Amino acid sequence: MLSRLCPRSRNVVYAASFTEKFSYIRDALCSCNLIAQHRVSTNTSEHSSGRAYADYSIFKGKAALVMTPLPARFSKMDSGGLKVDRKGVVLLKFMPAIGQRKYDYEKKQYFALSATEVGSLIGLGPTETCEFFHDPSMKSSLEGLVKKTLTVSPLGDGNGYFFNLSVLNAVQKTNERLSVPVTKAEFAVIRAACGFALPHMMGWSKVMQVQHPEHRGLLPGQRELKMVTDVW
Amino acid sequence: MLSRLCPRSRNVVYAASFTEKFSYIRDALCSCNLIAQHRVSTNTSEHSSGRAYADYSIFKGKAALVMTPLPARFSKMDSGGLKVDRKGVVLLKFMPAIGQRKYDYEKKQYFALSATEVGSLIGLGPTETCEFFHDPSMKSSLEGLVKKTLTVSPLGDGNGYFFNLSVLNAVQKTNERLSVPVTKAEFAVIRAACGFALPHMMGWSKVMQVQHPEHRGLLPGQRELKMVTDVW
Amino acid sequence: MLSRLCPRSRNVVYAASFTEKFSYIRDALCSCNLIAQHRVSTNTSEHSSGRAYADYSIFKGKAALVMTPLPARFSKMDSGGLKVDRKGVVLLKFMPAIGQRKYDYEKKQYFALSATEVGSLIGLGPTETCEFFHDPSMKSSLEGLVKKTLTVSPLGDGNGYFFNLSVLNAVQKTNERLSVPVTKAEFAVIRAACGFALPHMMGWSKVMQVQHPEHRGLLPGQRELKMVTDVW
Amino acid sequence: MLSRLCPRSRNVVYAASFTEKFSYIRDALCSCNLIAQHRVSTNTSEHSSGRAYADYSIFKGKAALVMTPLPARFSKMDSGGLKVDRKGVVLLKFMPAIGQRKYDYEKKQYFALSATEVGSLIGLGPTETCEFFHDPSMKSSLEGLVKKTLTVSPLGDGNGYFFNLSVLNAVQKTNERLSVPVTKAEFAVIRAACGFALPHMMGWSKVMQVQHPEHRGLLPGQRELKMVTDVW
Repeated sequence: MLSRLCPRSRNVVYAASFTEKFSYIRDALCSCNLIAQHRVSTNTSEHSSGRAYADYSIFKGKAALVMTPLPARFSKMDSGGLKVDRKGVVLLKFMPAIGQRKYDYEKKQYFALSATEVGSLIGLGPTETCEFFHDPSMKSSLEGLVKKTLTVSPLGDGNGYFFNLSVLNAVQKTNERLSVPVTKAEFAVIRAACGFALPHMMGWSKVMQVQHPEHRGLLPGQRELKMVTDVW
Repeated sequence: MLSRLCPRSRNVVYAASFTEKFSYIRDALCSCNLIAQHRVSTNTSEHSSGRAYADYSIFKGKAALVMTPLPARFSKMDSGGLKVDRKGVVLLKFMPAIGQRKYDYEKKQYFALSATEVGSLIGLGPTETCEFFHDPSMKSSLEGLVKKTLTVSPLGDGNGYFFNLSVLNAVQKTNERLSVPVTKAEFAVIRAACGFALPHMMGWSKVMQVQHPEHRGLLPGQRELKMVTDVW
Repeated sequence: MLSRLCPRSRNVVYAASFTEKFSYIRDALCSCNLIAQHRVSTNTSEHSSGRAYADYSIFKGKAALVMTPLPARFSKMDSGGLKVDRKGVVLLKFMPAIGQRKYDYEKKQYFALSATEVGSLIGLGPTETCEFFHDPSMKSSLEGLVKKTLTVSPLGDGNGYFFNLSVLNAVQKTNERLSVPVTKAEFAVIRAACGFALPHMMGWSKVMQVQHPEHRGLLPGQRELKMVTDVW
Repeated sequence: MLSRLCPRSRNVVYAASFTEKFSYIRDALCSCNLIAQHRVSTNTSEHSSGRAYADYSIFKGKAALVMTPLPARFSKMDSGGLKVDRKGVVLLKFMPAIGQRKYDYEKKQYFALSATEVGSLIGLGPTETCEFFHDPSMKSSLEGLVKKTLTVSPLGDGNGYFFNLSVLNAVQKTNERLSVPVTKAEFAVIRAACGFALPHMMGWSKVMQVQHPEHRGLLPGQRELKMVTDVW
């Protein structure tokens, strides 16, 4: 059965892995700002430029949760330097189960976490809950028609968290709910992986790459003075 | 068949450390899934492509524990992008002592930790225990004939953990137990090193490498608009 | 003199984001020591050498806080090796609000955190406060004329911190106060991003880059001996 | 005075920065194993191969503490792969004060922390103490003649730690004691920097660098089977 269902959707995906990523990026932007969306079309180039894809998948009885990080994107300035023109995100993809270990890729729902939302997630105490609200159409004529809510609440006994996504669509008159229980061990992976991803989402990792050094030492006088001020 | 094959390859590999790594990878896969095994033979190529090896060794009175990280492996997609085709692991190698600071390499036993198992390990509280069950022959005709159990339990007084591996082999009618006490300091190293290894096992580190930027700046109008939406 | 000079350069730099970064570096140094300032002019070269810029911005009702990391700068030694000739900093830029989500760039104030100050920040307990005092003119004839004080104090209920900058200028007879409330989630981002930035500010990340290995293996005898001593 | 004393010792150092590093490495090895020492002479090459140097300095009233990380060193195997032939260390250099903010470089004392000792340090609780014993002449005819003891003990009120180095030299009939109080903020830097350094000292950072991917996808059959086992 699995072989009947998954491969089909998979084929769709892999045949058109560009468009899958397209939806990734689109969704990522939706929850950030509109401007970037206008640039999505230019992203096709990225896909032939050795981009890499990896995720962390949690398959449970009623739904699956797939997390994928997206780094910040830089553009070149006239000065020759680089600046972030789009922040990165951690993208959550929820898929409902339609049988034992079978998940309906067609019914997937995305939710893109910003740096601050990731901070909220990794800083979550064992008994705390956090909730995020996104509007994919923010600042467009469709604003308010689709409401996404992600709630992360403790499973109890510090044994992990419930990841609950609700998507209210006023146009299609639908309200989908997708729930994935995340164990303490799985959350430890999410915390470590998202903590690693943060500086890359923010573009700080690129900034910190050491530039080629100048062929120049310090004058003795400067060295002494510097030592004093370091001590200070 | 597997049980007949694995030991043989082990003997073979003992000679050169190149083939030793070969057995590493084989074993890493054994405890994950069968498919990968079919690909092991293709791995030899990796060894001439500047691969690096490093481990963390804990030598104690009755046994030694050697930890080795293995990164995710990527394959190229038709689109030109890269995707993870095999997740990484942290490989544990146990060897019984046969005298003072002498360990029997022939009797070594492997146990490969997945990302989530690593998450369970690094998230372990000072008084908590975790236990993992692996079947090297999972999904083969030999399923259930070899049972590996790794138990990590507190030494007491928050002074570290006991790493206990038991390998029950119904074919060879053997039940080997290997125990290594890990001090609090050694576990701090394991926690830091495994926390570092996680994003690489998952392939996220590769994903986050910043791709070459496009030659394109933001129009002033866009910059202002972006500022507003960032505030949102 | 400095007070007359700095604002001027600030105005100059407002035009292009290239020169804005220029003022970043200038200010970063101001709050460290004077020597470096003498070198600022030489920094322009850096900007055409593929440097990257990224920040983390927190926009609130009364003011905005923008954080930017600056890596350590290395210079080449006669031996061919590299040594840090300027430590990195995390630069804080405060801007007062002048309307809804509008901030006065002209009235911005900088405060550059050293490695140890960053350590103090990321080690801050939920109920703890830390306070830093900087004198941009330290060791110059203007010493003591401008006093900058950054106070980071808990918002209460472990819900984040208040970032409060006060700049007392005896020359211009001004005392500006800029306050930004930072949520727990935003502080988690600051903690993770600054923890990531630290080794780069210190130059340790560059030191740890593995150098090209020598073409040389270990003799078998050495390998055994090594095993013994490792056990020691 | 500073200009009289420091520059001199400094000149010695910078003129002969190779030999300074030599003593670094020698000391680092002393506390690890003998074999490596025999190879120190071959290290000269390293110094012209773009090695980088950076440290973290804590200058206090009675002494100064300078920390420097050294990465693992790899050697090439016949197979073309790389293996660690020497573990890295975090090197501590103590210098006694001889006046206000003046430190006697000639009287410096080194202490090299292994991965496990670093683990002990970064895992230290606010009220805990750790103590390390090194013998620079271990396994030589001079074994036991020089005893180095590093004690890290709490300053009280969770306000940092005392770093206390004692060097007992039976040959020179000397017993030097060097003490540096480390604030909570400084220790937070040490913890973050050493936590960053650990995987590089162990060589894991090199291992995790993703190798060039093979031009090969998965067969559909394999993909399905893999999905099942991933779910498992």
